[in-house]
Amino acid sequence: MDEASKKKLLRMVPYGYYLLGTREAEVKDVQRDVNVILATLVMQTSFKPPMLALACRKESRTRAMIETSRVFALSMLAEGQKQMGAAFFKDVAHADGKLNGYPFELSANVGCPVFPETLGHIECRVESAVDGENDHTVYMARIVDAHASRDGAPLSQRETGWTYAG
Amino acid sequence: MDEASKKKLLRMVPYGYYLLGTREAEVKDVQRDVNVILATLVMQTSFKPPMLALACRKESRTRAMIETSRVFALSMLAEGQKQMGAAFFKDVAHADGKLNGYPFELSANVGCPVFPETLGHIECRVESAVDGENDHTVYMARIVDAHASRDGAPLSQRETGWTYAG
Repeated sequence: MDEASKKKLLRMVPYGYYLLGTREAEVKDVQRDVNVILATLVMQTSFKPPMLALACRKESRTRAMIETSRVFALSMLAEGQKQMGAAFFKDVAHADGKLNGYPFELSANVGCPVFPETLGHIECRVESAVDGENDHTVYMARIVDAHASRDGAPLSQRETGWTYAG
Repeated sequence: MDEASKKKLLRMVPYGYYLLGTREAEVKDVQRDVNVILATLVMQTSFKPPMLALACRKESRTRAMIETSRVFALSMLAEGQKQMGAAFFKDVAHADGKLNGYPFELSANVGCPVFPETLGHIECRVESAVDGENDHTVYMARIVDAHASRDGAPLSQRETGWTYAG
């Protein structure tokens, strides 16, 4: 294996940036029962029915929640929202009706945190999961609802300089 | 389901463009036994071991070949190679040692067509497949080798105007 070539090519694959909102089976206390991380590994896998794949680190709180609730929501970050993305490198703190300082709602269909200031969100229910020997679990999820909030371009790797690949 | 929102958001997800080279179990006659299409639905799913997911239309010659050979190669198109990508909307024709007019090789490890004029290629062996009720098969594949040919930026949706999502 040519490790340098592998890394170089895999880092050229474009990805968007999403606030990935998850929850426990029930949300009684937002601070304890929901989580949000910045995610990139998302791609559509079917048109009819609409489905997408999400790859999620195995040893993560996000994965533990998805295993329990079998749902998640993706809020798509826009151009100019690098700082909003960076805010979710930290653990989630709930204060003044905000998560890490940003207004959120629990989504209408799957009840996961979504962010009205982003381009919009997609709500998903997990249909199957692939664990294999890889270091991420890949969730195959049915898109059950979507809400586009506003026009705009997605946050790009050119703007952030962040890569999660290689 | 808000169909317009779903389509709008899914079309904002960035993808790269790849010449996806496949083959039958054995390549005796290039014209008959290999195929190349333009593909976009690719994402990394693991670092250790290195793996990626590829979504492939169920009723396609590409999928039939992958089912047989369990291997494929992805050559990453560069900025300025829109025309090269468009050449593979057509069926593959082999003439003068080229496929659809472009020089190719059978890759060193998995023996699938790759294109030296692109940014480089990644060679993959399928570990598992998810069929489900979706209209694409999702292949979970181990990256067994990679070869970066040259520097450059990947071909972007801004340049092509092509989307395969929604």
